Parts: sequence; structure tokens; C-alpha cells
Amino acid sequence: MWEVVEADLIPISIGAGILGTGGGGNPYLGYLRVRQELRAGGTVQVLDPEEIDDADLLVVVGGMGSPVVSYEKIAQGGEETAAAHALEEHLGRKFDAIAPFEMGGGNSMAPMIVSARMGIPLVDGDGMGRAFPELQMITYLIYGGSAAPSALADERGNRLVFSEIVDAKWLERIARVATIEMGGHAGLATAVMDGAFCKRSIIPNTLSLARSIGDAVLHARETKSDPSTAVTDVAGGRRYLRGKVTDVHRRTTKGFARGHMILDGVGEDAGRSIRIEFQNENLAIWEDDEPTVTVPDLISLVTTETGEPITTELIRYGFRADVLVLPCPELLKTETALAVVGPRAFGIDLEYRPAV
Amino acid sequence: MWEVVEADLIPISIGAGILGTGGGGNPYLGYLRVRQELRAGGTVQVLDPEEIDDADLLVVVGGMGSPVVSYEKIAQGGEETAAAHALEEHLGRKFDAIAPFEMGGGNSMAPMIVSARMGIPLVDGDGMGRAFPELQMITYLIYGGSAAPSALADERGNRLVFSEIVDAKWLERIARVATIEMGGHAGLATAVMDGAFCKRSIIPNTLSLARSIGDAVLHARETKSDPSTAVTDVAGGRRYLRGKVTDVHRRTTKGFARGHMILDGVGEDAGRSIRIEFQNENLAIWEDDEPTVTVPDLISLVTTETGEPITTELIRYGFRADVLVLPCPELLKTETALAVVGPRAFGIDLEYRPAV
Repeated sequence: MWEVVEADLIPISIGAGILGTGGGGNPYLGYLRVRQELRAGGTVQVLDPEEIDDADLLVVVGGMGSPVVSYEKIAQGGEETAAAHALEEHLGRKFDAIAPFEMGGGNSMAPMIVSARMGIPLVDGDGMGRAFPELQMITYLIYGGSAAPSALADERGNRLVFSEIVDAKWLERIARVATIEMGGHAGLATAVMDGAFCKRSIIPNTLSLARSIGDAVLHARETKSDPSTAVTDVAGGRRYLRGKVTDVHRRTTKGFARGHMILDGVGEDAGRSIRIEFQNENLAIWEDDEPTVTVPDLISLVTTETGEPITTELIRYGFRADVLVLPCPELLKTETALAVVGPRAFGIDLEYRPAV
Repeated sequence: MWEVVEADLIPISIGAGILGTGGGGNPYLGYLRVRQELRAGGTVQVLDPEEIDDADLLVVVGGMGSPVVSYEKIAQGGEETAAAHALEEHLGRKFDAIAPFEMGGGNSMAPMIVSARMGIPLVDGDGMGRAFPELQMITYLIYGGSAAPSALADERGNRLVFSEIVDAKWLERIARVATIEMGGHAGLATAVMDGAFCKRSIIPNTLSLARSIGDAVLHARETKSDPSTAVTDVAGGRRYLRGKVTDVHRRTTKGFARGHMILDGVGEDAGRSIRIEFQNENLAIWEDDEPTVTVPDLISLVTTETGEPITTELIRYGFRADVLVLPCPELLKTETALAVVGPRAFGIDLEYRPAV
């Protein structure tokens, strides 16, 4: 067990931003709110998955919505906690610990706020080892966890309990439209499970990994060394391209940021040009009209100079960026998982082949 | 107390169709399902509001969705029952009786199915004394009943409990988008209340009224007398125009059927022309560019020959129709009610003036 301290928050937000592969929303406001919780005396205890008691009752929390909205409609910090409370009331039981939804920008911070406010620990891990745009794409649900009951809450006081649901995709569909109606952001609590199931289905130690990646980036900045190399030294994978953004097509539709961007190589990569497709998160790289990298492998953009993660809603013409390809967790590579998070789940008619 | 028998169903569906002012959806499939319940030995006991025990626990049920959809996506009959069961489970209590949502086509039948399946009586009355397009427009909610908890269910097995909700309009907004995502029709259970509150807020005896109107129409058909006169003899009000539909503009948007129609007078009304605006239900009549009748007064179209109610989604060019204006219940005429169901609630910038 370790305890999150204020000095961890910037590294975690950088690392989670990189693991977030362009999605997960704006971490900065979440960072401010977690800092506020810690300064007010709140604590965030982090448990290694192996430290969870098999009989503990856990709930998965995270923010739902388009990341674009996270820059306009500011998450209040209480939505996820309200959703978890709604589930506790529905079940008539208290939760023993929080399991994070995904390791992305805002969603790296939201579970910490819930942990501090509810006074229960956070598990070191998450359900994606990265970020994905839809909620059926979490390992807890992919590997048989229950989509009901789940709860959705907004900052006004609306709370919905999905008491029975056909499957995780139906939860995604109905929760998505409710979230849009709530203004584009809502807190979700789902996949209620015991500790034994959590140990089997969680992607472990990704909060620690995010912190390590962030520490490495900060160290590279201090020592004027290459931040991308620092990231791949910790996370594995490689720099795919050093380039410059020459085109971005993005639209926000049905609560998602969808589109593609073109990067032209610079320096040793001069003469190359790649296209990256995204739906909140970066999904695939195409080069010379050939697909070269696809989900579930991680495709992350960082600024060349400082290693700062660049999200799909902030990317724009002229950005100098390193495109990193990082390996994805083994739990995402099974046949069961690829049916939900592989290329075809995003309408890309390709077999997944690991790129790193 | 009286018991619904099979011979009541056709009169109720005709009368509710007329009180439904063009909305409330398709009663025919609901009729078939209630008949099936009765033939299978189910019973529908109807209580006069005065017979309810003050301490009884009641729930309001009805179908939610665009009436257009009720002709394409067939209500299965179990949605409202599933919603009521979801609320019982959430509350940990059983309901003692069902209160109808509105007196419109399909929604005159749905509460009977719930009553038969749950084995609890139905109250003779409803929350509108007619039909309206949005759920905050029921007297139970207008007069202080609680919008939470409410529940929404579809025929697949999805059940949502709105455990806390800011106000009835938020319930309408979120339930509406969830209903659309569920395919355009869902069963709603809302406004949990005790018998004492039900007596104060229900529009009483509208099920009996619907049956009386329907009986009068059937009698007129048998005796070759004028069906419209038969309706106004029972319900009050008057025939506003005997005419022919010369134009219909209708679109289905955000789950509603919206538009307007033009009727030109025939016979003694020759030379007159009126425009009727609708949103699922008929909202207002304009004649010579002047508004002459508005909600909450009832504007109902029936076929000239047979007195059959004509819904806004079935009306089309060439229909010969009598336009009836029927008085609305006193509970809809208060300042409190007019703020929710008066012309301005529908974007029509007029004061309500009773037309009959």
C-alpha cells in the first residue's frame, strides 16, 4: 500500500495522459481538485491488486463524456462520488475500495477524488491500461463482470441507477445519451465486483506505471535529455515518428471526438507522412496507405521538446510531436478482448497484429 | 369499485382516443393485450379515487415515446409492468394500486395490463384528463408529487431507476433520450404517492368518462345519429368545425410528432379554414390568423361519419373530420398548472382563455 502525495499528481497526470493515447479528457481540473482534497486533509490510499481481500466489494468509477466537453463543461469532482453513493444506496451495502475505469487524463484523477471523499482505498490498476472511448471496453466487463447495477450522476443532483441491463453495450448506449442530455459529462459507477474477480480482471499497477512515466518525463526535462526515450525506457515500445501536424479533421458527434490527423516526418523522419485515425483516442496509424499500428496497441503523441501528452481535442496544425507506440497489456490481446477493443470494434476491417 | 370487462374495452379505447386529443398512440395493440389478459383470467379492478385508502402506496404508469413509433415498434405490454417492478425493488415495498398517466390511445390500455399482471387495482382517473406530450405535464407532478424515484423499462430487459432527479423536467429530458435510444418506446413508472395525495392530485373518473363517451359514439353509430353530438352531450364542449383536411405538415423529431394541419369547412362551415398546431397532441386552433382555442382545452378530431378519433400521426389529406373542443378539467386551469400545460409551455405566446 502506498499513499498518494501532492508531488505524485503531476507525474501521474503526465503518465496517464501518455497512456491515455489522446483521450481521457482534461487532467488539469481533476489535478486541482485532487490537490484540494489532499490539502484539506483527504487521503488516497493505493492498494496493490494483490492486497485486496477476495471478499471485498469494489466499484469501478470514472467520468463519461466527450473529452472535448471536459474543457468547456467543467467536471465538478462530485459526479463520480454521487454515482458510487447511488449504487451503495441501491445495493444497501458499502464499497470497500475503488477500481479505476481507465488510465487517461481526467479519468486518472476522478477515482482519487472518490477515494478521498468516500474514505476507501484505490486499487493500483485500471480497466483499460490506457483509455478507450466506450465503456463496454473495460476488462472488468469484457471478462464477465456485471453491467448492472450501474449508476450515472451529474453535478446538479440527477442520479440514474441501471438496475438491470441487457449487456455492456446497452449500458454504453443508454448511459451515453443520458450523459449527453446531462450536458456532456457525468460520473459513472459500474462493474460491482468482489476482490477475487478484480484481481483476475484488472490491468495491474497502471497508476504506478503512470507515475513512473511522468517521473521519467520530468527527469528528462530537467536533464535536457530526450523525453520520448525516457517514456519508452519505462513503458516499452518505441518512437514511431518525429513529425509535425499538417492536417486535423475533427468533429464532435454523438458525444465523441472523431476524426483523423496527418503528420509529416521531420529530421531523420523527413519524407515520411502518416495518418492517425481517432475516436476520442488514437485508433490506428496508416503509412503509405498501409495500416501499420492499430488498437489495442497504444498510439500516443507527446510534444517533441517536453514530452507533454497531446490529446486529440487539443492537437492542431503546426504542433511538433513525437508519435509513440507503446505495447498494450496482455489482457487486451486475448480473443475475448479483441472482439471488444480490436480494430473491428472501431469499424477498421483489420486483424490486430502487435506493432511492438 | 367496478371491474373492467371485455365489452368495456372498445368504448374505453374510443373515448380515450377522443380525450387523447390526437395523441397517446395506437390503442389497438393495447386493446388486444388487455383482452388477452382478461381472457386468460386476469382481472382489472377499478377504484373510485374516494375508495383509495389514504395510506395506500400508488404508482403512476404509462408508455413513453412518440406515438408515431407505436405503429412501428410494437409495445410488448410488459414494459410498464417491468418499470413498476423495478420501482418496487428499489423501494423495497409493494404498490397497492396503479394510477394512470394520461387518458390517451395506448396509454388508456397500458395501466390495465399492469393492473392485471400485478394483481392490484387501477384508480379511475389520470394525471391529464387528456393526453399531453411531456411527462412533467401530469397533475401528480404539477401539484408537488415526487419525480424520483421513477423507473423506465424496455422490452429487452433494460431497467433504469431515476433514484434522484432535480425536477420533473429533468426526468422528462433524460427519460426521453433514454426512450429514443431504447427504440422509441419504453414503459414509465413515476410519481410514487400515498392515497391521500392521489385523491388531491388525480383528475377523477376519466376512465368512466372515456367509457361513457365511447358508449355514446357506439350508440350513435347504431342509431345513425350524429356521433359528434353524442360526444359533446356526454363530455360537454361543442363541435368547432365540420371540415376536410387539406394540408398536413408533420415531422418526427426528438421523439415527438410535430407539425400542423389545415382543415377547410364543409356544409354549414363552408368558407371557413382553420389551422391546428400539434406536438403529439393538438395544441391550438388558429382561424383567420387569430388563435381561438389553446391547450389545455381539448381539441379532438373525429371522423364525421363514425365518430372515430383521429390521431395526429394518422391524419392525412382528404380526411373528413369534425373538430371538437371539449372543456378541460379544473385542475389544469390553475395558475400552477397553466405554467406547465398552458400555451406558453408549448412555445405559443398567448394567455389561456377557456373556449368552452
